Amino acid sequence: MKKMSQQRLRQQLNEIIFGTETPAGRGFDIALIYAILISVFIVIIDSVEHISSEYKGLLFFCEWLFTILFSIEYAVRLYCSQHPFRYARSFYGIVDLLSILPSYIAFFLPQAQFFIIIRLFRVLRIFRVLKLFRYLGEANMLMRSILLARRKIFVFLMSVVVLVSIFGSLMYVIEGPEHGFTSIPTSIYWAIVTITTVGYGDITPQTVLGQSLASIIMVTGYAIIAVPTGIITAELAVEIGRDKGEHSCRNCKKTGHDSDAVHCKYCGAKMEIPV
Amino acid sequence: MKKMSQQRLRQQLNEIIFGTETPAGRGFDIALIYAILISVFIVIIDSVEHISSEYKGLLFFCEWLFTILFSIEYAVRLYCSQHPFRYARSFYGIVDLLSILPSYIAFFLPQAQFFIIIRLFRVLRIFRVLKLFRYLGEANMLMRSILLARRKIFVFLMSVVVLVSIFGSLMYVIEGPEHGFTSIPTSIYWAIVTITTVGYGDITPQTVLGQSLASIIMVTGYAIIAVPTGIITAELAVEIGRDKGEHSCRNCKKTGHDSDAVHCKYCGAKMEIPV
Amino acid sequence: MKKMSQQRLRQQLNEIIFGTETPAGRGFDIALIYAILISVFIVIIDSVEHISSEYKGLLFFCEWLFTILFSIEYAVRLYCSQHPFRYARSFYGIVDLLSILPSYIAFFLPQAQFFIIIRLFRVLRIFRVLKLFRYLGEANMLMRSILLARRKIFVFLMSVVVLVSIFGSLMYVIEGPEHGFTSIPTSIYWAIVTITTVGYGDITPQTVLGQSLASIIMVTGYAIIAVPTGIITAELAVEIGRDKGEHSCRNCKKTGHDSDAVHCKYCGAKMEIPV
Amino acid sequence: MKKMSQQRLRQQLNEIIFGTETPAGRGFDIALIYAILISVFIVIIDSVEHISSEYKGLLFFCEWLFTILFSIEYAVRLYCSQHPFRYARSFYGIVDLLSILPSYIAFFLPQAQFFIIIRLFRVLRIFRVLKLFRYLGEANMLMRSILLARRKIFVFLMSVVVLVSIFGSLMYVIEGPEHGFTSIPTSIYWAIVTITTVGYGDITPQTVLGQSLASIIMVTGYAIIAVPTGIITAELAVEIGRDKGEHSCRNCKKTGHDSDAVHCKYCGAKMEIPV
Repeated sequence: MKKMSQQRLRQQLNEIIFGTETPAGRGFDIALIYAILISVFIVIIDSVEHISSEYKGLLFFCEWLFTILFSIEYAVRLYCSQHPFRYARSFYGIVDLLSILPSYIAFFLPQAQFFIIIRLFRVLRIFRVLKLFRYLGEANMLMRSILLARRKIFVFLMSVVVLVSIFGSLMYVIEGPEHGFTSIPTSIYWAIVTITTVGYGDITPQTVLGQSLASIIMVTGYAIIAVPTGIITAELAVEIGRDKGEHSCRNCKKTGHDSDAVHCKYCGAKMEIPV
Repeated sequence: MKKMSQQRLRQQLNEIIFGTETPAGRGFDIALIYAILISVFIVIIDSVEHISSEYKGLLFFCEWLFTILFSIEYAVRLYCSQHPFRYARSFYGIVDLLSILPSYIAFFLPQAQFFIIIRLFRVLRIFRVLKLFRYLGEANMLMRSILLARRKIFVFLMSVVVLVSIFGSLMYVIEGPEHGFTSIPTSIYWAIVTITTVGYGDITPQTVLGQSLASIIMVTGYAIIAVPTGIITAELAVEIGRDKGEHSCRNCKKTGHDSDAVHCKYCGAKMEIPV
Repeated sequence: MKKMSQQRLRQQLNEIIFGTETPAGRGFDIALIYAILISVFIVIIDSVEHISSEYKGLLFFCEWLFTILFSIEYAVRLYCSQHPFRYARSFYGIVDLLSILPSYIAFFLPQAQFFIIIRLFRVLRIFRVLKLFRYLGEANMLMRSILLARRKIFVFLMSVVVLVSIFGSLMYVIEGPEHGFTSIPTSIYWAIVTITTVGYGDITPQTVLGQSLASIIMVTGYAIIAVPTGIITAELAVEIGRDKGEHSCRNCKKTGHDSDAVHCKYCGAKMEIPV
Repeated sequence: MKKMSQQRLRQQLNEIIFGTETPAGRGFDIALIYAILISVFIVIIDSVEHISSEYKGLLFFCEWLFTILFSIEYAVRLYCSQHPFRYARSFYGIVDLLSILPSYIAFFLPQAQFFIIIRLFRVLRIFRVLKLFRYLGEANMLMRSILLARRKIFVFLMSVVVLVSIFGSLMYVIEGPEHGFTSIPTSIYWAIVTITTVGYGDITPQTVLGQSLASIIMVTGYAIIAVPTGIITAELAVEIGRDKGEHSCRNCKKTGHDSDAVHCKYCGAKMEIPV
């Protein structure tokens, strides 16, 4: 009898934590979103020196409050999941673990010695923001078009790497260390900054030849950089077209109707209203 | 009898001020556009010190001239509107109020004390420029495609926020306060400047690891930033395609049919084939 | 008889200068393109001080050689044109005049007095580069799509002007003259530099509030700036589709065939091969 | 008999080196990709001074190891190719030669005298990265859309050149050498940096007139620069649409038909309707 009730508890918890249909499930989700946002906000302002020194106690308290809350959430998720192992190894399972682990590790590390590692672990808590992705359902469509175009994007990135290596190396020869192009890696960094049109201006060509080559990189680079936009637009257009395409006529089975169509545009039969 | 004539006056004023069909209505609109442009121009040049000190009297006079003119306009709009309350709470009603209020508030504030607040109220008059939107009819189409894509744009913005938080935090750990990345908020600001390809160059990575991560942000960020362009292009293409179809149904007169439609999608009547 | 031969001369000159079908006409065009490129190149290098002082005589000689050549060209065009007045007032007539006028004016101006005006007239000769547009036939298609979208582009530009005025003014209030935002015009200039993602970095926000607003300008600005790309892409797609559409089937008259189609895709009849 | 076996050897080598079907061929390709990546990595880190002085011996050894390996590869390719001359003059033949030549030339040059030339030849080895293009099959599709749009891109580039010449010259007149616009070539360089939205900030307008013109360049330039994106998107959309159509003709087996095709556009046979 006890096992039975435990199973019912598990199922109920599952509905609340993983589900979004019940009022309790929706309430839990909204509370979790707020908790994530506030905890991320605390990590961010904790790095501002004059705030972190003034509100040290409050920030420390909040930090552990959220760590304990997220730990409980993680434990309950593990407990009520039907396949605890599968959850633990899934993307969200790892993210959930990542959002509590750094606090515990930072706690057990010898404080004074490795300051940079402390800082690293304090900052790693920012990965809690990834928990938000659970609630960005539409992101799937964007992801899907990026995935569909992944081979083209890979080829494009490789082409950029090749271009940037060659342009960077040439600039290193032309401008040389005396104008800030101290090595090929630095020059490649400059070429990336230029070809993506970021243009910090920390390193700039000074010679006429260097400025001419830089101009060629910018203008031709602009034409090349238009390619990812083109790829994603074309894929998205197909995706949006597909959304339209799901809505088919009961009579002639043809698709491609607008979402506001009342009659089939091919045979004139009345369309079913999509739910 | 007086009430009757008052109602006629109201209706005539309404036609002049809100309408664009009569010659008087069109004349009023053109005069108003000029008044807005000149008054905004005055606010702008008023902030240039050597101009504001030289032409102090003239600028002061113009300022109150336009404030009084716009006050009269606001009063008349309230008077002749059929639903004064609805107008007052509408977007344009609030804009109209906003374009006169700052002058009055600045007048009643103790001059010498809060200089920054004076400056704020002097500058707030710039919101008069929003009155221009009444005359940008085509903006509706752009707005419509942005609204249609609003969920996708929100998801995109959220993804950018997540990305920028993580990249900014990592850069804070890698570069640290000694290279200008003084806190996570500053590093996130840097990440936004970089991912949008603005690239001021006031904060730049100095270490090899930092420059490598910055390069990854730029190149992958470029691919991600192509998404809003893609979304808006795809939505706009649908919008433009719909406008092109002046192809209307003989039966129900509705437009917006695809060029290959054989039956009207609203009433099911057979479509005339366009020549 | 003399008039007759003069008319024939005029017609022959017209064929050579305005036409592109005869070998002489094509030869003239190619010679003219080279003359334009060399003369523009001379204007450009003439501004480099150490070159202009070393090759003073040569540059002066070349300058007058091209001025006389282009003057003869202008005179002959006027002479052999069927409607000399119409030519003189056309876009290319004005460009042809503009490319010789500055040299003459600079010659008659009192040398020593107005150095800046001399410099202006020396530089105005750069407008000769506009003569090249005569040979950019494909530019028409691009121009056509920009013209088709001109109302949308105007609305877009106006929206940018409104946005930039408001953002610039707010930044002027927030940052103030002490951080480089010396006046509203300067702040608007900064807002344009930011919203177009140019990002010189000569003026940058220093306060937390200023950096937050700047981040909002960048990210939302990016979404808004995607609009012109979307407009032009959508218009170009229609234009390219139209080019495809010109190729119609002799049998069923339907259009929309690819340029490599051998048979009509609707009725199967053999397609005429386009010249 | 010996000739026979030699021919078999050649054919086997050809299958391994040029082919990708056999396991040996695939193994060779993967080994070559790693060799290219490592050798390029060595060229790049060789330019970092503190690394090149510390690991001088190791880098020298690796350099010659890869030079000899690539030399053997080049010799074998020449030997086993059916048309050695055609291979030698092909794009990849030249790239293969370019990736070994600089090392030999640098070896025979008098070391101390022309340091800059040594540096040039050391860096030219970076062109080995071009060998990677052999393995970027998908790059062909991108190349095809760029080639299809090459006339439009040329016209676009010419228009940019004309615009940039005029804007640069005007800025030279307005700002003059005292604000960094030292000559027209420098001003044109600035105009390119601005119109491509790179915006280094090494040269910036200081006068009100200069900042106004710069704003015009940025905003209108932004509209113009949207054109290449539009061109490539429109061309890519057609390309992707064609790939999607795996819809092949039963009669001639050719693909690339539109989804609404009733007859094969190549042979005129009736198409099967896709399910």
